[in-house]
Amino acid sequence: MPVRLTDARAPLTHELDVLDEYGERRRIAIPAERALTVFVDTRELVTLMTLGAAPELLVLGYLRNQRLVAGVDDIDSVTVDWDVEAAAVRTRRGIDDFDAKTAKRVVTTGCGQGTVFGDLMGEVDAIALAPPADPAARISQATLYALLDAVRAKESTYKSAGSVHGCALFRQGELLMFVEDVGRHNAIDTIAGWMWMNGIDGRDKIFYTTGRLTSEMVIKSAQMGVPIVVSRSGITQMGLEVAQRLGMCLFGRATNRHFICYCGFERFDAEPEPKRAAA
Amino acid sequence: MPVRLTDARAPLTHELDVLDEYGERRRIAIPAERALTVFVDTRELVTLMTLGAAPELLVLGYLRNQRLVAGVDDIDSVTVDWDVEAAAVRTRRGIDDFDAKTAKRVVTTGCGQGTVFGDLMGEVDAIALAPPADPAARISQATLYALLDAVRAKESTYKSAGSVHGCALFRQGELLMFVEDVGRHNAIDTIAGWMWMNGIDGRDKIFYTTGRLTSEMVIKSAQMGVPIVVSRSGITQMGLEVAQRLGMCLFGRATNRHFICYCGFERFDAEPEPKRAAA
Repeated sequence: MPVRLTDARAPLTHELDVLDEYGERRRIAIPAERALTVFVDTRELVTLMTLGAAPELLVLGYLRNQRLVAGVDDIDSVTVDWDVEAAAVRTRRGIDDFDAKTAKRVVTTGCGQGTVFGDLMGEVDAIALAPPADPAARISQATLYALLDAVRAKESTYKSAGSVHGCALFRQGELLMFVEDVGRHNAIDTIAGWMWMNGIDGRDKIFYTTGRLTSEMVIKSAQMGVPIVVSRSGITQMGLEVAQRLGMCLFGRATNRHFICYCGFERFDAEPEPKRAAA
Repeated sequence: MPVRLTDARAPLTHELDVLDEYGERRRIAIPAERALTVFVDTRELVTLMTLGAAPELLVLGYLRNQRLVAGVDDIDSVTVDWDVEAAAVRTRRGIDDFDAKTAKRVVTTGCGQGTVFGDLMGEVDAIALAPPADPAARISQATLYALLDAVRAKESTYKSAGSVHGCALFRQGELLMFVEDVGRHNAIDTIAGWMWMNGIDGRDKIFYTTGRLTSEMVIKSAQMGVPIVVSRSGITQMGLEVAQRLGMCLFGRATNRHFICYCGFERFDAEPEPKRAAA
């Protein structure tokens, strides 16, 4: 049975008059940011701050990444109503041990700091990604460039208003899903929700994010089964360590024709750029 | 009685060999990121992912911003031991309603999404900042520039390894405290911890962050009593709305001699740059 989702819409940008260094007033756009309180079978779970581009998929992905629901089949519907800033999730059978699952989070979670590390790290060692020998789980330099070009064409809110993170899912150079949100966690959760709802396997996919490759971003990618991750930004040590442990291939500082491959060289088919002539 | 703090040190960067677009291997530094599990009177509270530059102040500020402890006098000591990645907080009298306070967070908090909105927003309307007529709660364009210059000189981990957020506290152009961390929430919490421990009032201070001015960053600044906030990045709609409600002055895209003043113009003494000649 498919999950029933609303398709709630809200403006993604907001205009205001600002003052600049020349003393001039001008009108600019900034990204919207709205509270979305998630109720599961009428019980309040969490309030997410989001741009609001794809709230139903965000809620699905949040439930999945928090491991509150075992499978997408357990969810009957997600109904978002921006008038009351609420998402109502109906499950088919309720959630087992709701209190225990949410109570545990208090202890192990970096509330307000961006991490659900305790739960996530424990699952990391159970993850087996597609091996580097699998051509679908590799990436060439040309594909990397194609992917960066595709992202650049999609960033609509970023272009008009800045201050949002974009995330995308690719099968080689083919863009499958793109989303922007005010938080990079929300953006990856939205992609996860979309994959979950559509039964999409991550083993032959490449994940792109404008955000940094911190531990929890790498872990969430691995949980989606995605072996290759590309970022416009940099990396932190634990993001690197998780990726090395799982044999993932990570790229950072990836923009135009520049990038750094941090690890997982065995998945990367390099086609080196000609070196600039020495001065 | 002063709070007793350890002064735990750990390396702030990590070196690795990467591959670039020219097919060259080179050695770069990336920021460290380590788990710090906080125990309060032997009870596990939370695991924070941090760079580790000032873990004791981070823990203090986290406790303060989560409103788990009423005053700094309630804390006897914070002992950080990197060998076991733990911070042990000893209180003088225990924490009242520990379970209730931490349970509430499950409902209202964007766990893993970077927000403790439910609690924070409720407190916003109780905040009264210094009025714009107070010269100490205003900023001139020259002071803004001086502040940006001071930050640039301090960013040591950012310069060597990238991928960290910097936060600073100023009294006009005078830099009082600077910290870098992998998360912008950690960085502001560390500043809050430093202010709390030293009994520093925010009413005549200016807060600087490299991160975006999202709702919770603006709320945390307001909770510290700081009326003026400067960011290298942009802003989101709820960050703007909270600031407007409280009469805060916010600057974004602030770097070199460029900036945007989003709101609170009445606190800003503009000294406009000469306009460039039209082409």
